[in-house]
Amino acid sequence: MASALHKDYPPELSAEEEHYLLSNLKDWSIAHGLAVRPAPSFVQPSQDPSGVLATTAPVTLFPSLFPRVCFEEGLAIQTAYNELYSAIARDEEWLKGIVEELIHIDDFVGKLWETHLAVKKEGYVQNLSLGLFRSDYMVHTNSSSPASRPGLKQVEFNTIASSFGGLSTQVSALHRYLLTIDAYPSSTASIIKRDTLHQSNSASSLAKGLAAAHNAYESSRSGRPLCVLLVVQDPERNVFDQRHLEYALLEESGVRSFRLPFQQTLSHTRLESDRTLVYTPPNSRTDSYEVTTIYFRAGYSPDDYLNEQDWSARLYLEKSRAIKCPSVLTQLAGCKKVQQVLATPHSPHLKHFLSDDQVASRVLATFAPIYPLDKSEAGHEARNLAKDPASAARYVLKPQREGGGNNIYRKNIPPFLEKLPETHWPAYILMEMIEPPPLRNVILRNGDVQRGGVIGELGVYGVCLWRNGDGGDSGEVLQNWEAGYLLRTKGDQSEEGGVAAGFGAVDSCCVVDG
Amino acid sequence: MASALHKDYPPELSAEEEHYLLSNLKDWSIAHGLAVRPAPSFVQPSQDPSGVLATTAPVTLFPSLFPRVCFEEGLAIQTAYNELYSAIARDEEWLKGIVEELIHIDDFVGKLWETHLAVKKEGYVQNLSLGLFRSDYMVHTNSSSPASRPGLKQVEFNTIASSFGGLSTQVSALHRYLLTIDAYPSSTASIIKRDTLHQSNSASSLAKGLAAAHNAYESSRSGRPLCVLLVVQDPERNVFDQRHLEYALLEESGVRSFRLPFQQTLSHTRLESDRTLVYTPPNSRTDSYEVTTIYFRAGYSPDDYLNEQDWSARLYLEKSRAIKCPSVLTQLAGCKKVQQVLATPHSPHLKHFLSDDQVASRVLATFAPIYPLDKSEAGHEARNLAKDPASAARYVLKPQREGGGNNIYRKNIPPFLEKLPETHWPAYILMEMIEPPPLRNVILRNGDVQRGGVIGELGVYGVCLWRNGDGGDSGEVLQNWEAGYLLRTKGDQSEEGGVAAGFGAVDSCCVVDG
Repeated sequence: MASALHKDYPPELSAEEEHYLLSNLKDWSIAHGLAVRPAPSFVQPSQDPSGVLATTAPVTLFPSLFPRVCFEEGLAIQTAYNELYSAIARDEEWLKGIVEELIHIDDFVGKLWETHLAVKKEGYVQNLSLGLFRSDYMVHTNSSSPASRPGLKQVEFNTIASSFGGLSTQVSALHRYLLTIDAYPSSTASIIKRDTLHQSNSASSLAKGLAAAHNAYESSRSGRPLCVLLVVQDPERNVFDQRHLEYALLEESGVRSFRLPFQQTLSHTRLESDRTLVYTPPNSRTDSYEVTTIYFRAGYSPDDYLNEQDWSARLYLEKSRAIKCPSVLTQLAGCKKVQQVLATPHSPHLKHFLSDDQVASRVLATFAPIYPLDKSEAGHEARNLAKDPASAARYVLKPQREGGGNNIYRKNIPPFLEKLPETHWPAYILMEMIEPPPLRNVILRNGDVQRGGVIGELGVYGVCLWRNGDGGDSGEVLQNWEAGYLLRTKGDQSEEGGVAAGFGAVDSCCVVDG
Repeated sequence: MASALHKDYPPELSAEEEHYLLSNLKDWSIAHGLAVRPAPSFVQPSQDPSGVLATTAPVTLFPSLFPRVCFEEGLAIQTAYNELYSAIARDEEWLKGIVEELIHIDDFVGKLWETHLAVKKEGYVQNLSLGLFRSDYMVHTNSSSPASRPGLKQVEFNTIASSFGGLSTQVSALHRYLLTIDAYPSSTASIIKRDTLHQSNSASSLAKGLAAAHNAYESSRSGRPLCVLLVVQDPERNVFDQRHLEYALLEESGVRSFRLPFQQTLSHTRLESDRTLVYTPPNSRTDSYEVTTIYFRAGYSPDDYLNEQDWSARLYLEKSRAIKCPSVLTQLAGCKKVQQVLATPHSPHLKHFLSDDQVASRVLATFAPIYPLDKSEAGHEARNLAKDPASAARYVLKPQREGGGNNIYRKNIPPFLEKLPETHWPAYILMEMIEPPPLRNVILRNGDVQRGGVIGELGVYGVCLWRNGDGGDSGEVLQNWEAGYLLRTKGDQSEEGGVAAGFGAVDSCCVVDG
């Protein structure tokens, strides 16, 4: 990666080269829906009250370099990760142990767990679960051992609302298009090639996951037409990302889907006595659909729950016979405490869930050391590391709950902890910072072109459909496949990675050897 | 059309129905490139200097009703029209007679003719010509005989820069999508059906026309890679319409194309001694391409020629070995004087070009009576009709030259002619107004929803590749096919029809019987 070949990548562009690349990129992106609704800072809502304007999604002009061995390993182990998180979601007893450590410090985890318990009390009526997962990694280079090969280290594992599966298909197609039309200078000819650019098929592959759940659903034989329900935020700037999945679901599998803003759940759905979930589209109150699958693109963050009614809505959906993507337990399996427990050195948990030692060791190799901040021995060690500015400089402090934006980095950790009552410390985990290789790229965002050092984060999508067990039966995985990838690239000055939040760009991988 | 079944079409929508239809339409359109760059009145250029914003192209919410017999006839006779206009373009002597009547009153026609003569003097080196045509029609209902069946009447025949072939494929797909997702109320179920909505394949079919020319081009064996050159306006708000053709050309036929702003022609192209046209992309001055086909999406209006250098550029391109789409003679064949000469009652010309009587009579049936304003007998009659406000009310006065925006309607004709020196009158033709049936629709434009009476204009695309003759040889048609359709719908208060100019919307046909 740091070889002489790549240190000048991407090349400086002449004004004419940049004009050619950008004008083709801007047109292609809109013509192919690689787009977002503009941020309020770019277009004031009062200027476009009905919301018809769109703009190119933040994208990189060039595909970022990514070590081939890391890229291939990330794709190869996705089915093992699917199996792992499916097994965790099926092991309520084990999850209970995790959750009970958090329940008094993280309201959100507590509310999710209560939701599960309330449904359990009445009995679950749907034993299938769907996961559309995304495992996020960075390339780690050992700066104290520069000759060692780069490795893939997991940043987090998303079990709910894994985004950018729609746009990642489009951005990898964009970079291939730019290669085809010679928008990349000839100096890159030995790097950017058709066989080093990887087309992500995530939109189609994730849609096939939804179709698999839809088709596996046993209808109540109500005679109503069947549908998939997307529970969404409203408004949603990243709507085209979601729409590409909906269009693929309709075109490739003939499955109807509806978008339901989470806050409107109770107005437009009802549960029949057998807990069939019935959706009545507001535009046609005489029609109603039986919901086979609920695909949550909202509800992943406390911010989505404005009041108790929203929690009632979540409970209501969870109770239903529809297959949840994800179920509450699957969502809880994605909390960072789980990642920490798995990644704590010498943890026995990974082997508990992955019986094949070889598979388990490949997964283990992608963990960065993660420590609890609790009263365990590892927790004691972690507290010392976190309080000392010298050692804290190699770490990041992350809250257990989902969603970015709240991480505390390096030298900011000690003063942060100083202000935080110690009883709240276990709500955080301490993770060794991954040291990504120095890369450069050029990002187009809101019409501005920004050049500089970047950090790339590889997300690998996975589809997993499983049957939950009951008592002694631990259930079984019915469908399990890797479902394409995303590269998210952010300026290395920023330490957050959410593209929709304005910090990064969607990107694709140009794999390189060595 | 005026039957009870259709008088309530389209239905009034409830707020929920309109919200469902519009939100799905707005997302689908951007996700599929049914888009334009926003007008300066909507987004000021200073707000988006790099031009990354886009908006839904003006579209109708519903497909407009169109009589089946007229729709089918329009498609069926397109190959005859292709043959007709190809034959006209090949008959220089005949065209000369037309042009010589205009040359002293219409500078633009004069300059085009001079361009032809200049090339002729040196000798044409390319005997293939490509036409991507569009024949525009309105449905004509005879108000004095309401029981008679509606007929198709030609508005104009476009031989250069026929637009909306890219977006028409997308808008017909949009209306089918809206049907599929039940965005049309159930009251329309007997009208809007999969077999009454017609998918236009114009983007792919027109691109195949460009590929046919590209493949028919005999290379100079310079060893350079070959390309198609789009000569375009800059900036171009309707760029996605053109891009869809480029993408289809690349994806379906593997043919490279470049966009060259007309004003930059001389900077980036050169003619070799054998008049091979060489294009050097400004972004890569060491590469150069042999141009097989020049596709003009500029140069159709006097406004595109800012100075003598632009005419030099046109001459230069015309001289080249590249296949022109269209050649100057083909462009001249599209002038309204030709339409008038063909449509003057008892004109012998149509039979001259179409040897098959049956074919000629089907084409003839689509002509609305058109009169010259010259000193012929028909011209004398026309002058009387035009000067009298009572009779003028049934007519439109059109300039001979291409491009909309300059028509004079009905009662405005007499005062207009009064101010115009009589020597300039022959620059215009007088055409009986077509009386379209009363229709209603709803148009989305710049985020505004407008309801009301509309007029629909059917454009049928045609691809024709022919060999020009020489001396006694009259040449021959090599490829000839109908290439999809466009429906343009405008408010019936406006009397202009260009969607890009802000007056209308792209639409698709919902065919109805009777």
